[in-house]
Amino acid sequence: MNQKMEDRAMIYISVIGEGKCDQKIYQTAYDVGQLIAERGAVLVCGGLGGVMEAACKGAKSQNGLTVGILPSEDRKWVNPYVDVAIPTGLGEARNALVARCADAVVAIGGQFGTLSEIALALKMGKPVVGIETWELIKNQIADRSIIATSQPQEAVAAVFRILRA
Amino acid sequence: MNQKMEDRAMIYISVIGEGKCDQKIYQTAYDVGQLIAERGAVLVCGGLGGVMEAACKGAKSQNGLTVGILPSEDRKWVNPYVDVAIPTGLGEARNALVARCADAVVAIGGQFGTLSEIALALKMGKPVVGIETWELIKNQIADRSIIATSQPQEAVAAVFRILRA
Amino acid sequence: MNQKMEDRAMIYISVIGEGKCDQKIYQTAYDVGQLIAERGAVLVCGGLGGVMEAACKGAKSQNGLTVGILPSEDRKWVNPYVDVAIPTGLGEARNALVARCADAVVAIGGQFGTLSEIALALKMGKPVVGIETWELIKNQIADRSIIATSQPQEAVAAVFRILRA
Amino acid sequence: MNQKMEDRAMIYISVIGEGKCDQKIYQTAYDVGQLIAERGAVLVCGGLGGVMEAACKGAKSQNGLTVGILPSEDRKWVNPYVDVAIPTGLGEARNALVARCADAVVAIGGQFGTLSEIALALKMGKPVVGIETWELIKNQIADRSIIATSQPQEAVAAVFRILRA
Repeated sequence: MNQKMEDRAMIYISVIGEGKCDQKIYQTAYDVGQLIAERGAVLVCGGLGGVMEAACKGAKSQNGLTVGILPSEDRKWVNPYVDVAIPTGLGEARNALVARCADAVVAIGGQFGTLSEIALALKMGKPVVGIETWELIKNQIADRSIIATSQPQEAVAAVFRILRA
Repeated sequence: MNQKMEDRAMIYISVIGEGKCDQKIYQTAYDVGQLIAERGAVLVCGGLGGVMEAACKGAKSQNGLTVGILPSEDRKWVNPYVDVAIPTGLGEARNALVARCADAVVAIGGQFGTLSEIALALKMGKPVVGIETWELIKNQIADRSIIATSQPQEAVAAVFRILRA
Repeated sequence: MNQKMEDRAMIYISVIGEGKCDQKIYQTAYDVGQLIAERGAVLVCGGLGGVMEAACKGAKSQNGLTVGILPSEDRKWVNPYVDVAIPTGLGEARNALVARCADAVVAIGGQFGTLSEIALALKMGKPVVGIETWELIKNQIADRSIIATSQPQEAVAAVFRILRA
Repeated sequence: MNQKMEDRAMIYISVIGEGKCDQKIYQTAYDVGQLIAERGAVLVCGGLGGVMEAACKGAKSQNGLTVGILPSEDRKWVNPYVDVAIPTGLGEARNALVARCADAVVAIGGQFGTLSEIALALKMGKPVVGIETWELIKNQIADRSIIATSQPQEAVAAVFRILRA
């Protein structure tokens, strides 16, 4: 098989969300990871627990490829479902890499770290699909840049619809 | 005078906002910069135009010290009111440095780059005061982490009240 | 199979060198990549041409896993033998990530970018093995921190001897 | 006075070297800092002790402007002679910023961190002048890219000669 063509066609999707999450969010992230892997895309995340771990676990259930871009200087805290762990030592600045690495982003729940990754991805012109995540208001008007969805199938379908448009 | 003590007491405030802005926002940013310099704090920004330029211009009107942390590899695009220009070559990842460098942040208007700096600063536990900037909603509930103010005096007073608490 | 254990045992080796190289150096890098993959380690590099491409090509000949950490904001310039491409948008600062990501480094030939990665890896306390690369002198005395070898088998054997010590 | 012109004319010189040094190297760095400030250039450094502290102290003796670009997330370890402290939280990757920020670099003594900054600056095409620092050999031939000098006056004169050429 032509290695070159295969690589060119590869899609990278970052799944972002908090490092500690409840069981419902964990299941949602697992399902998103599974669906991404089923579609043959690479799953990128921040490499830690919670949403990141769940998404990687879901992806691995389908033999997907998972990448974790860590804020720390070593791999100590990487979740066990990450295939390729990239320790950056950049602290919060690594959030820019999680966004930069993505063709599209799926945000699930999340705190301020997640919000920063959403904003960085939008600034970079990348599609961001959300499930139970931040909503934005600017000048009293709802900003619809985050594509709001309510469950994993809808979210992943939206991502691929946009990427193939 | 004791150089050491002087340095330890120094306060850094980042003013963030879009690189192109209307006249009203420009005036607001100018006033914020002026008030920050009057209080003796160092003004930090992303070094470019719009809100960043206006804030630096205001600070220089009071002989304040201004710092610009640029995304680019050189100083070509720095606004003329920046005293110390730090070209980073980091692209969007420099937004983390604008947040990291601040004891507190004032957000004025702004687009997604500004939102990323707000989120990064909040993630780092730094106070963020806003004027006509993003509002955040999480789980249908307004998030009040950005301290909303309506004009420069109120914003800068809020910053110093928090920093001295 | 226990995914967790497998991950913990994984070794990452960065192969560094210039983006344009002659045929002899290309062959050396190819052989190094091949030997690294044969030993089951992940091959990390800067993702571009020359030594980086050759090492990845060698690793892929053994079905190894290859990672490219790119200075650019997109994947446009990645060589076709990289499995996981991480565009950082950090410019030269990405050299710190190539070093940070490695358990050990093999330097082949190389210019100043390579020298920076060697120095960063040594600063981080990581073993660096060299083939026809920089030699260092400090205070008129040769610094032997770069372990000098003359061909691929010797270099890769040295890397694994140190990592297993 | 025209603020714009003043800024455009400003020269930034990074002084690099180890964070702990003997008295002789400290005095050399002090003298280099003093001479840089006498010439009206901004002194940039990594913000820590040893050579960095000495150079800043020398610059402040002439009322120069000093900038420290720190690897840490806060300003706790900045030396007391830094006017503008930039905590980056980037760890070793901040070395790229110390190089990027400079129009020219003076390296005094130094360990591997210093070597990485030398290499990054040379990669970026910036002049590097050294005093008792690393010497480089490539393919059995001495590489003269680091301009070797033996004392402060000679080093700073060399920097300005090159920058004005």
